[in-house]
Amino acid sequence: LEQSRVIGVDVGGTKILAAVVSRDGSLGARIERPTEVSSEAALLAQLDELVEELRAGSPELAALGFGIPSRIDQLEGRAVASVNVPLRGTDFRDRMRERHELPVAIDNDANAAAIAEWQAGAARGASNVVMLTLGTGVGGGLILGGRPFRGATGSGAELGHVVVVLDGEPCRCGGRGHLESYATGLVAGERARERFGQESGARDLIRRAEAGDADAVALLAGIGRHLGAALATLVNALEPELIVIGGGFGEAAAEFLLGPAREVLERDGLEPGRDNVRLVLAELGTDAGVIGAGMIAFEALAPEA
Amino acid sequence: LEQSRVIGVDVGGTKILAAVVSRDGSLGARIERPTEVSSEAALLAQLDELVEELRAGSPELAALGFGIPSRIDQLEGRAVASVNVPLRGTDFRDRMRERHELPVAIDNDANAAAIAEWQAGAARGASNVVMLTLGTGVGGGLILGGRPFRGATGSGAELGHVVVVLDGEPCRCGGRGHLESYATGLVAGERARERFGQESGARDLIRRAEAGDADAVALLAGIGRHLGAALATLVNALEPELIVIGGGFGEAAAEFLLGPAREVLERDGLEPGRDNVRLVLAELGTDAGVIGAGMIAFEALAPEA
Repeated sequence: LEQSRVIGVDVGGTKILAAVVSRDGSLGARIERPTEVSSEAALLAQLDELVEELRAGSPELAALGFGIPSRIDQLEGRAVASVNVPLRGTDFRDRMRERHELPVAIDNDANAAAIAEWQAGAARGASNVVMLTLGTGVGGGLILGGRPFRGATGSGAELGHVVVVLDGEPCRCGGRGHLESYATGLVAGERARERFGQESGARDLIRRAEAGDADAVALLAGIGRHLGAALATLVNALEPELIVIGGGFGEAAAEFLLGPAREVLERDGLEPGRDNVRLVLAELGTDAGVIGAGMIAFEALAPEA
Repeated sequence: LEQSRVIGVDVGGTKILAAVVSRDGSLGARIERPTEVSSEAALLAQLDELVEELRAGSPELAALGFGIPSRIDQLEGRAVASVNVPLRGTDFRDRMRERHELPVAIDNDANAAAIAEWQAGAARGASNVVMLTLGTGVGGGLILGGRPFRGATGSGAELGHVVVVLDGEPCRCGGRGHLESYATGLVAGERARERFGQESGARDLIRRAEAGDADAVALLAGIGRHLGAALATLVNALEPELIVIGGGFGEAAAEFLLGPAREVLERDGLEPGRDNVRLVLAELGTDAGVIGAGMIAFEALAPEA
């Protein structure tokens, strides 16, 4: 097999994007479908079909990579517990490997996005990268010492769950005071409705801030300051060269979030990390997941030490 | 040169411990001296003398390792900014290498202690380790993916400066709400004096807790809960197998700190990291620094990728 192209599959809660991915991150043929969420069996059958369609057009494809909105056990290749898709304790990697007779790699969708930005986006060439995707929730990904870092079993880099306020606001995960309790589109929408009425929401909040509404700017600044506390923690613990901010909310509200975040980072971060670290926006947008899924497929072809 | 023994030097603010260190972490000849803090030149001359004394007795020693209470630039081999010793911007590694004509490695003293526990103490055999030393300050060390992790230039693993309360208590570094603002012997002593009078302090606080004083127990529990927030952050971000707690205050107060810390970790940590992680006390006590300094000297002999 020629090992220059693979299949990447970004398994989202509402849609699946499957594509042929090259080593440089460029995409060939692609298929997008609404996600079959009725059952695990139905979803797996849908994924099989997508893989087979792409392979029919490009029989030389060398490996499969899947980005899944799930806690992943890398040792067992399992999707342990998922958000928005019916994969719970699914023996995903072995099943796909046996079904398609190709090397298979799986990862959390946020890790996949971070790997994509590192290999083909805003973090190209960096060895120590923190990525935060601020959307409905907060996803995280880490590149440390020149390679993806996933923790002891693959559940690391849950950067949305760093504590920024001990005993703070409840988080969806059951914890308290996590970054995800403060810095998501979901929370921004709630705060906007409290302040501006039931018709408001995260988008309206950003529009108001763009129009110069001081309350809206202050509300987003408060969210940015919580982001800044998490950035200070990550800079002091990991001294990354680069922090990449992505996600629908993160990118749309960046001009109101990043200034206040930087202020807290300047105060709470240590030298030289706080001075040397670059804070940039993600470049790959909604393709990050599928590109990253392809990149982890290449990892399956040439596993690192 | 036989490469089985090296010199480790633990440069403390009050004393220096230099010793012959074997690969298994066992110590041979050792010399302890009060630290010469009058000037950089005087300290470096003292270190030269200690190295020469040990080499006179064991001419085969193959490398030198130094653990220094300083921010370290690993790229340049510099002690950038130190606490309690007169090394600021010191071109330490090259100077020692030229003077003694041996491979030289340097590291932050907390990193050295973590490496020692990993190679020869409580964290033997683990691949992903977080170490926190709670003393006058809070030191940190990380072993990630089976090797020491130091960040982009060597200033990573400053785990005393993870933020546990946004806009919280002032930290000695100028930041706010850091773990080090809450969970040190220094802070415990202050709180004890506020509560029990000027004669009290950290040791007295622990003695009172041991005698069953509910106020003392509650005060230490509050410190432990802040520790727990930092542990949850580190577990969620890094999914370590093992957390090692060391340091004079950390070890002496462990029975009052670790229960409350675990409670917060149970609430704010994600599965499976929070369930799988083991929380243990350091084993090497005050020898950790010199053993770790020896271990980094071995790194200088056989640099990792």
